[in-house]
Amino acid sequence: MDIALTFLGTAGSVPTPQRNLSATLLQRGSDRILVDCGEGTQRQLIRAAVGLTQIQTILLTHLHADHYLGLPGLLKTWDLWGRTDPVDIHGPRGLLDLVELLRRIIGRTDFPVHWHEQRAGDVLPLSGARLVAVATDHRIPSLGWMLAEDDRPGRFDVAAARRLGVTDGPDCGRLQRGEAVTTTDGQTVRPTDVLGSPRPGRRIVLTGDTRPCASVIAAASGADLLVHDSTFTSAEQQRAEETYHSTSREAATVAKEAGVRRLALTHLSYRHHPRDIHAEAREVFPDCVLPADLDRMIVPFPEKGAAYLEKEPVAVPS
Amino acid sequence: MDIALTFLGTAGSVPTPQRNLSATLLQRGSDRILVDCGEGTQRQLIRAAVGLTQIQTILLTHLHADHYLGLPGLLKTWDLWGRTDPVDIHGPRGLLDLVELLRRIIGRTDFPVHWHEQRAGDVLPLSGARLVAVATDHRIPSLGWMLAEDDRPGRFDVAAARRLGVTDGPDCGRLQRGEAVTTTDGQTVRPTDVLGSPRPGRRIVLTGDTRPCASVIAAASGADLLVHDSTFTSAEQQRAEETYHSTSREAATVAKEAGVRRLALTHLSYRHHPRDIHAEAREVFPDCVLPADLDRMIVPFPEKGAAYLEKEPVAVPS
Repeated sequence: MDIALTFLGTAGSVPTPQRNLSATLLQRGSDRILVDCGEGTQRQLIRAAVGLTQIQTILLTHLHADHYLGLPGLLKTWDLWGRTDPVDIHGPRGLLDLVELLRRIIGRTDFPVHWHEQRAGDVLPLSGARLVAVATDHRIPSLGWMLAEDDRPGRFDVAAARRLGVTDGPDCGRLQRGEAVTTTDGQTVRPTDVLGSPRPGRRIVLTGDTRPCASVIAAASGADLLVHDSTFTSAEQQRAEETYHSTSREAATVAKEAGVRRLALTHLSYRHHPRDIHAEAREVFPDCVLPADLDRMIVPFPEKGAAYLEKEPVAVPS
Repeated sequence: MDIALTFLGTAGSVPTPQRNLSATLLQRGSDRILVDCGEGTQRQLIRAAVGLTQIQTILLTHLHADHYLGLPGLLKTWDLWGRTDPVDIHGPRGLLDLVELLRRIIGRTDFPVHWHEQRAGDVLPLSGARLVAVATDHRIPSLGWMLAEDDRPGRFDVAAARRLGVTDGPDCGRLQRGEAVTTTDGQTVRPTDVLGSPRPGRRIVLTGDTRPCASVIAAASGADLLVHDSTFTSAEQQRAEETYHSTSREAATVAKEAGVRRLALTHLSYRHHPRDIHAEAREVFPDCVLPADLDRMIVPFPEKGAAYLEKEPVAVPS
């Protein structure tokens, strides 16, 4: 099952000619999850041609305007396009106060919009995976979001199964699903006889605006990908602290301490050259990328290699 | 004094990869007037590099979300950038109800924001010109906006002045300002002795969403430029009527009846190819253009030629 992220908006609080306001699309199989929805997100989705109407879930990291002002326009466009499927919108404490306001702008829609306030640790189930709200540290209530897949069954050892007398066909499926089977000569074969140990699913953590924090390091521990606030370089360390953002050095330190496989830097202030932001992070954590708007990142199963931007040369797993 | 329009957003209610939601910047000398402010306008202004912070006046044509959702983000960005100059925002009936809502999103700003409800016929003075609210016909209260310059003094006849004994220098200025002067030999020379008849200023009319209507034809009578709703082609005549928009044939007919010098078509639905919209209008009114986003249109004084897009070959006045 494919997992891909499309970086729809990688600017800090102010857009630039190259970068729109915050939004990231997370696709896993048929699940389409939008993380934040800054002004102009509907147009970025249209430009990226990634199935505007099939988004089922919107996750907001916090309720600063540059992270949600694209919502009313997106919902209105869905309505104009005749959407009937419901959409679920999750955000931190304060969301339900904002809804009243947004509803007056949006007006009536022909599809249901469900709004949910979540707290750190809350879990939203997906098929074979889950979304988990992660505590982050911003000026107002805020959440990061983790996509965590269930463990996958261990690798099926065909040769061992044959040796034990398991016939090809339905019995192999039963064993892979965790059921014991009986062979034609009356022997019981258990799943553990033919399956390797369970293989971990993929794990991706995205923060919105945040200071570096222990809860993100814990959630991202060993994750395949961390997408982290990287608003400033260390040249503006004090400003980062005052505004509850992270420098790229801090984002890289979080990635290093969590032992993530790959780091993507986002929410870049127009006051710093992306090259400087990137260079500073790489000193601490070399395996980090700085996506441009509309870049797509693929997250393969861990044994197939690390997450990569489609425009990067694909690393062939050794 | 230069007049230029920058088309910041020429899409109908839904953006496209090429076209953002409604907004047009009108520049006359140092006056910068934004007409409508759809989602994403701040980024279009940044992309167009036309002095984001110097806009003094915002005119809204009506209060559908695709025409104002860019306002909160624009005001917040101005605040982040340290703006201290006031901004005046004018719109039709209903604006003051909306303000309460927008204020909660925008929060406090370090610069004054003045909101004004206007009715058709209301006049906003500029230096040597005025903005006039024009009645339009949409589903909700709506206004078009006219920029009308004062008449300019007639052409100064240097030869005649010399013949009458006026010395070069301050006396010429007095005559041009409408004052009589006395020559060294005691003769009185009146402005009418040396000035041609007053020359008209420029006139530009912009509609928001509207059906064709008599008030626009009246306001645009003989205007240098009309920017008109042209959402559909005639293939969707009924839809145009139901949604209170204009087809391009109707927009062209308004231009023809008003005898405007040039017509610019905007608010294009993604459901029609711009080529078809343009072709249909040109059958009725050949001198019409279909600007792309970020196109700039120059409006010279009438005697210098018709309004033209900067990307067009400039017509040399005969």
